[in-house]
Amino acid sequence: MNNALQPTNSRLSALRSKMKEHQFDAYLVTNSDPHHSEYSADHWLSRKWLSGFTGSAGDVVIYQDGGGLWTDGRYFIQAVEQLQGSGIELFKRRIATTPTIPEQLAQQLAPNSKVGVDGRTINQNLYLEFIEAFSAKNIELVLTQDLIGEIWSDRPAVPTATVFNHAVQFSGASTTQKLANIRQSMQQDMVDQVLISAIDDVMWLMNIRGGDTAFFPGSQAYAMISNEQALLFIDPHKVPDTVLTELRIHGVTCQDYTSLGDYVAHLCSTKNLKYSPISTSSLLANQISKGVVTLQGRTYAQAEKVVKNATELSQMQKALTLDGSAVVKFMYWLEENVNSHQITELSAEHKLRSFRQQLPYYVSDSFSTIAGYAEHGAIMHYSATPASNKSVGTDNFFLVDSGGQYLGGTTDITRTFSFGELSEQQKIDYTLVLKGMIRLTQTKFLSGTAGCQLDIMARGAIWQQCVDYKCGTGHGVGVCLNVHEGPQNLSQSLKDSEPLVPGMTITVEPGVYREGEYGVRIENILKVVAITENQFGTFYGFETMTLAPIATKPIIIDLLSIEERSWLNDYHLRVAEELTPLLDQQEKQWLAKATKAI
Amino acid sequence: MNNALQPTNSRLSALRSKMKEHQFDAYLVTNSDPHHSEYSADHWLSRKWLSGFTGSAGDVVIYQDGGGLWTDGRYFIQAVEQLQGSGIELFKRRIATTPTIPEQLAQQLAPNSKVGVDGRTINQNLYLEFIEAFSAKNIELVLTQDLIGEIWSDRPAVPTATVFNHAVQFSGASTTQKLANIRQSMQQDMVDQVLISAIDDVMWLMNIRGGDTAFFPGSQAYAMISNEQALLFIDPHKVPDTVLTELRIHGVTCQDYTSLGDYVAHLCSTKNLKYSPISTSSLLANQISKGVVTLQGRTYAQAEKVVKNATELSQMQKALTLDGSAVVKFMYWLEENVNSHQITELSAEHKLRSFRQQLPYYVSDSFSTIAGYAEHGAIMHYSATPASNKSVGTDNFFLVDSGGQYLGGTTDITRTFSFGELSEQQKIDYTLVLKGMIRLTQTKFLSGTAGCQLDIMARGAIWQQCVDYKCGTGHGVGVCLNVHEGPQNLSQSLKDSEPLVPGMTITVEPGVYREGEYGVRIENILKVVAITENQFGTFYGFETMTLAPIATKPIIIDLLSIEERSWLNDYHLRVAEELTPLLDQQEKQWLAKATKAI
Repeated sequence: MNNALQPTNSRLSALRSKMKEHQFDAYLVTNSDPHHSEYSADHWLSRKWLSGFTGSAGDVVIYQDGGGLWTDGRYFIQAVEQLQGSGIELFKRRIATTPTIPEQLAQQLAPNSKVGVDGRTINQNLYLEFIEAFSAKNIELVLTQDLIGEIWSDRPAVPTATVFNHAVQFSGASTTQKLANIRQSMQQDMVDQVLISAIDDVMWLMNIRGGDTAFFPGSQAYAMISNEQALLFIDPHKVPDTVLTELRIHGVTCQDYTSLGDYVAHLCSTKNLKYSPISTSSLLANQISKGVVTLQGRTYAQAEKVVKNATELSQMQKALTLDGSAVVKFMYWLEENVNSHQITELSAEHKLRSFRQQLPYYVSDSFSTIAGYAEHGAIMHYSATPASNKSVGTDNFFLVDSGGQYLGGTTDITRTFSFGELSEQQKIDYTLVLKGMIRLTQTKFLSGTAGCQLDIMARGAIWQQCVDYKCGTGHGVGVCLNVHEGPQNLSQSLKDSEPLVPGMTITVEPGVYREGEYGVRIENILKVVAITENQFGTFYGFETMTLAPIATKPIIIDLLSIEERSWLNDYHLRVAEELTPLLDQQEKQWLAKATKAI
Repeated sequence: MNNALQPTNSRLSALRSKMKEHQFDAYLVTNSDPHHSEYSADHWLSRKWLSGFTGSAGDVVIYQDGGGLWTDGRYFIQAVEQLQGSGIELFKRRIATTPTIPEQLAQQLAPNSKVGVDGRTINQNLYLEFIEAFSAKNIELVLTQDLIGEIWSDRPAVPTATVFNHAVQFSGASTTQKLANIRQSMQQDMVDQVLISAIDDVMWLMNIRGGDTAFFPGSQAYAMISNEQALLFIDPHKVPDTVLTELRIHGVTCQDYTSLGDYVAHLCSTKNLKYSPISTSSLLANQISKGVVTLQGRTYAQAEKVVKNATELSQMQKALTLDGSAVVKFMYWLEENVNSHQITELSAEHKLRSFRQQLPYYVSDSFSTIAGYAEHGAIMHYSATPASNKSVGTDNFFLVDSGGQYLGGTTDITRTFSFGELSEQQKIDYTLVLKGMIRLTQTKFLSGTAGCQLDIMARGAIWQQCVDYKCGTGHGVGVCLNVHEGPQNLSQSLKDSEPLVPGMTITVEPGVYREGEYGVRIENILKVVAITENQFGTFYGFETMTLAPIATKPIIIDLLSIEERSWLNDYHLRVAEELTPLLDQQEKQWLAKATKAI
């Protein structure tokens, strides 16, 4: 047996003993926090701790005599390696023939079986899927036993970092104003009270930020809004007086995070309650008093949050301009040193972070930097480790995807560098990626158009040589919140049907990933803007917010149209104009060269 | 009161008397035949007869003291004109705030009301919508009273044209082969028997064609398929011995069309039945024996039919080549005569038809020709009448959209002509329409991509100047069947989610329609072809099947990319090569000029 698996297998044994005690025939373990955030604090990474599988997505079910891991294509190879010897079988998600967890359990378990899960770690949607799948065999799902908590002796504590006010200078709207808008929408929908569960929605509404996790300045909290009151359920130790005072000004009362279950259990039955079955945990949803009429759906804050106001857009532009200056400093440093000093993926990542850290209003990075040289660039979610760390050479592409959290906004930028000669194929790939990015940026579209209808404007450029990238073309971006902010998205999924409207921010980041060879990705953040309204309808378009040069050396000019070439030259003109004042003399000179018209 | 309305109003009075007799509080009247075909025979045009509204889409509900017409944006202006003085109110479909007919009736009628409809003229889907909407108020929907039949004294008879065999030379597969494929799919789905209701599906399966309507060579018929038998329900007088003999060879037994209701009412309860709630009438669906388990969904024939086999594709290409020669003869005639003889929209339409009629295997036109000069070209579904008939001049665009039914395939082509000077705006519009058509034609795409994801490749070229066309970009095309053949489609509707696969045929026809000024549309039929399969997936593309020159004089060359320009030149080379042998000397010379490279 693989030695690395010893902790895993002893953890599995401990869990199985506990399962016996509780007479569970199966137990489900996830990495979700109770708000179903993209990034969970370490405390919630139970699946990783139990199974040893470290992928960012995946759920595990354990039986007495085996188990299953459900994860997607990004992690099939890694999962097989990390699960070897554990007796846990891989179920490949997003493949039509793979059963869901509820389907598999319903099929496999005997009638009247009992399944356990920490109900905080699955959302209400998944719970309802279980209930439907289990009814025919009368299988019971128990939400109230956190068996992992019983066996994980050195489990990291729930985060305790304090929250701070996010000034109206950055948010552009006070909590009072935001509450008024939400209450107006509630009134239109005849909703008496709304439970807001998504952490970023709560942070946005309360104009606060926190520090629960490394890349997302949020803090576990719920908001409960009615016409009469606005409650913030949060650990009271996390709330300093300055925040408490500010919240009180806007009529917000703080209550203990742990008291929400009791609160919803005793709601008055004459008022209905709306909540999101995606961001609300099954445990909480099942605590809601049975006398209350519940409505499931979007809980208003998200819709208001994703359409940025003028202040947010201007602050975000400032953040992106400053971020661009850090990226230029990094580019200059790279080019100056790549031939003379050893630069590695990790040293580059650290250098880039050090430039960002010097900027005003910097909070943290917004995700784990992807700095991949050569074949590492083809791994879409690569993160360099001391073991994988490659030297950056001059005979291949170096892909760097990184971003920062600033009080004014969240950034996310990818540039692909080369410091030597490239093959014809590399140049074609690079140019088509650039072409796709520009073509989407230039697209004008009728109101009502959604991401899945726009995606081909970028991806189609790459499809022309019969190459595809196995991810979306872009995602929404928050204001010092989630770097991946929905519901707007650019992808081929017909579920990405949220119409883009002015004020939304979204990345465009097509790519080419040649496994074992290299990756190319170029990524900017765009904002959706209104163009015109006429007898044919209302037309929108994009404006680029990200400011940083795009390497021109790898471009095959003939593959760009005249309009695409002009776009690039105009963009570089703007980059030079905006960033030059933020650079030192040598960097300025370098930028002038880097932004020269082609 | 408008005199023209007298027949309408006396018909409404007659209907209201009948409604009183039957105690109906509302009565629904449609233009649908029992198979819910695109083109109904005249017998079924009850809504048109009753209301005087002549649009191709729309349903009418009559109350004792008023009524409503539900139709879409193409007909708002026409509907208001034609309904004036009738007391029938317009309900604008495809506008979010407009209630559906079931919603409106459920809201408006008192509890325990009674609504009537000829159940043959609404499909089962609409019936289920009614049942859901009506349940709360216990409103009854009666399907069995054809009140229009009782009052429409000179109602046209149900069509009686005989059917004929569609030879395997054209269809490429015998009914025996088609039945075997359907039975295999049924077995996979554990379906015991399937009712095929869509006329074109039945024609395709039985390798027959008919003559019920002017533009669609079909005949009212149903097929009922099980593993043991294949039944064709059709008026026995329509089936000559040659067809009967051929059907028998393939194991098909004919039964009287009118006996199907009884047949489904006495189905054995041990076998399930699949049918389409879209093409099956509510009356028939409700006659199915209650003991039978029914499955609603696609009934196999459609899926087989829309993916053309090699014979069908090659026959269709032959039909399109011949059709192209007729179009070229027409173009030559137009240009020769437009300055010297009076040409009108109607004389052009007749001339074009006369060229088609001379071709081998010509059956009929495939739809009512749209020949619109100047502002008539902006009316998307214009059909010239003696009253509207305009002379074709040389100072504007002349848009001609036409097609033929040939035994080998259905055609549909639009070209926009100009015989004099054009404005800059006209040239821009023309060039962007052409650009959109070429860009979509050149698009390569990953398997799984649907029409709503591809649409922007054509439409986006027109959106760039903030203009939109209020219709789809393209539709499937049949083999001597429907000129609009689903489910494949190119449009912005997210419901057009049918992935395109090799063998499908589809039009691409972007346009610009400037109300009161002119219309521009250029339309070709494409086939979907396989391009390659590699580590990134399976890639498809398009090949153009339509062959006829595209006017080059209006083109602003700088608005086309190099690739688009080469495409046009290559296309014209092929057009000249394929069509020259089919033309006389003068036409050949004209074609050589018309296809000169730009």
